[in-house]
Amino acid sequence: MNRPLKFEVEKTLTDDQGVGRARAGKVTLVGAHGQNHEIKTPIFMPVGTLGTVKAVSTRELTEMNAQIILGNTYHLYLRPGHERVERLGELHKFMGWKGPILTDSGGFQVFSLSGLNKIDDEGVTFQSHIDGSYHRFTPEHSMAIQKALGSDIVMAFDECPPYPATPEQVSRAMKRTVAWAERGLAFPLKPHQARFGIVQGGLYEELRSQSAKEITSLPYDGYAIGGLSIGETPDLMQKMAYYTAPLLPTDKPRYLMGVGRPEDLVEGVRAGIDMFDCVMPTRNARNGQLFTSQGKINIKNAKFADDASPLDPECPCEACTLYSKAYLRHLFISGEILSARLNSIHNLTYYLRLMFGMREAIMENRFDDWVKSFYSKLNTQNSQ
Amino acid sequence: MNRPLKFEVEKTLTDDQGVGRARAGKVTLVGAHGQNHEIKTPIFMPVGTLGTVKAVSTRELTEMNAQIILGNTYHLYLRPGHERVERLGELHKFMGWKGPILTDSGGFQVFSLSGLNKIDDEGVTFQSHIDGSYHRFTPEHSMAIQKALGSDIVMAFDECPPYPATPEQVSRAMKRTVAWAERGLAFPLKPHQARFGIVQGGLYEELRSQSAKEITSLPYDGYAIGGLSIGETPDLMQKMAYYTAPLLPTDKPRYLMGVGRPEDLVEGVRAGIDMFDCVMPTRNARNGQLFTSQGKINIKNAKFADDASPLDPECPCEACTLYSKAYLRHLFISGEILSARLNSIHNLTYYLRLMFGMREAIMENRFDDWVKSFYSKLNTQNSQ
Repeated sequence: MNRPLKFEVEKTLTDDQGVGRARAGKVTLVGAHGQNHEIKTPIFMPVGTLGTVKAVSTRELTEMNAQIILGNTYHLYLRPGHERVERLGELHKFMGWKGPILTDSGGFQVFSLSGLNKIDDEGVTFQSHIDGSYHRFTPEHSMAIQKALGSDIVMAFDECPPYPATPEQVSRAMKRTVAWAERGLAFPLKPHQARFGIVQGGLYEELRSQSAKEITSLPYDGYAIGGLSIGETPDLMQKMAYYTAPLLPTDKPRYLMGVGRPEDLVEGVRAGIDMFDCVMPTRNARNGQLFTSQGKINIKNAKFADDASPLDPECPCEACTLYSKAYLRHLFISGEILSARLNSIHNLTYYLRLMFGMREAIMENRFDDWVKSFYSKLNTQNSQ
Repeated sequence: MNRPLKFEVEKTLTDDQGVGRARAGKVTLVGAHGQNHEIKTPIFMPVGTLGTVKAVSTRELTEMNAQIILGNTYHLYLRPGHERVERLGELHKFMGWKGPILTDSGGFQVFSLSGLNKIDDEGVTFQSHIDGSYHRFTPEHSMAIQKALGSDIVMAFDECPPYPATPEQVSRAMKRTVAWAERGLAFPLKPHQARFGIVQGGLYEELRSQSAKEITSLPYDGYAIGGLSIGETPDLMQKMAYYTAPLLPTDKPRYLMGVGRPEDLVEGVRAGIDMFDCVMPTRNARNGQLFTSQGKINIKNAKFADDASPLDPECPCEACTLYSKAYLRHLFISGEILSARLNSIHNLTYYLRLMFGMREAIMENRFDDWVKSFYSKLNTQNSQ
């Protein structure tokens, strides 16, 4: 059978170079909407929760070289409804985005966002966070929704246990996730849709190992590490990602879900992860927290009121090339919509360039230096 | 002395053509920031209250062929402060806009937005709508602020009486406006800054005549009709504009302040007005009210939930060429920032194209037909 996704590792580093198992690769989505898409990894995927990456247009996403974006199954199911999106030509056409889209399974949002939810072996019953109405997701239903949305990469429906959780809780969720992964695979999708399985197991190495073994025995096109960045410390998260990544096959893309800060992306890449997503760049942007090559900035700080310098002199984005910090501060203080726009464009540009910088450094055998330079700037900033 | 503004009337229609005294012209701003700007009239000026046309970027303004935008003296004085804007390179550089800018005098906002205000012959003491702090504007102060902002067209500081007001109140405000117009003229501006005087007189023809006579005797570069669209009926407003416009010199640009709905712009052009501004296209956009060639639409209406057709098939804007009504409704219902963006881009594009359409029709001797066609579409819509 012709797989809808191909993955080629272009380069892999080794631990004895002091930079972990970082790798550069190429994901090819075959025949999605009449054309192949190539995604150069490692890559960060901007999150487009409700059919729009918040505050940003699809043209701007293209300009910042976003290669793939994420859509949220739970949100799109509630509003405007997956069947409506399908009638209107699927998610790509609906939101005017020609690049690839990955949809999550809705599982994480059901557990974290919705009101009361009741999990059983068949699925989850939950209340909408919008109007309290009752809904039920099963693995089959999650597949049906993602099929209707027409995304290019479909995530398996998993159970993400909370943090902290006992080994028993995590083990039960992990087993359910395996059973659901099998059921999801049996549900037919559209020919262009690839599927990713999700490894759970919380912060327990043994459970992670078991989950990885069982999930990777299923014929998914890629594998994700789920259940991290949900409240544990960054150190624990990074440690578990580093532990789990090598348990995944080398010849398929690896995706660390919902992570994270720039330094978490760096550690993720060192662990051998290829794909990331997180709301942090856009959410922080709307709160005035901006990532720059000189460290993190809170743009509402009074010290920027008369600062005529650009936000980040190394950044080619609209916010950095056309405006001063003083203007960006003024927009934020005044609650102007342009503030959310420019800040989001900047933070996403920063994240995408960070990933591209890592990829280049890996390809050119200078990732070691790149990592040292990254932390040197980060620590300078932190000690200021 | 080299005037910073030149005006050339390219064509004027006459009443016996049944289309009023509509005219097409060209305003040239001489040497503003090292280059001449040409503004083809009649023109609508998008309102950039706080150093940004709300929700819209300057690139988008350029793409929609906005020729000149407006800045609000009162707002920019309070935030971020005119002296700060000047230190940061004046308003053009601050907000990244290369085209011309007209600033109002702050008078209207002082009377309409601020808390308690006390008017005397010297000026106005008022409280900030943001923090209740006390401030005082005089004609000289208004000029000093606009000088600091570095706008291309500076408006005289006027007193705009409320509606309704007695002839005595309006007369007193009108006389003060004349005295203040004289004082403002004596205040030196930057060489590139042109000045417009403002005719007041409320809804009293005699007072409008007297005001026009006295204000136009002062050597301003253009003349505005103020004190309309402040609560009176559209009919009264249009009637007063039609009465006042011919009292202004034919060889200088005429500006109808704060007006208005599309049909008000049409009637204004018929009256011989050259320039307009209004927050309506951007404010209504944020509330989901969209102007189209087929009439006004409330995008939140449930009937658009599955509507795959474009908002306005005649419109070349991003919202109309890339998306469906269903998507625009979804964005609005979901409170997405992209909703305000796309709606604002569309409404401004509609307003600018409306003006351009009138200009072309005037130049090509078919304004009569244009007006008939405009009202025919409007009435079809209104009777639906």
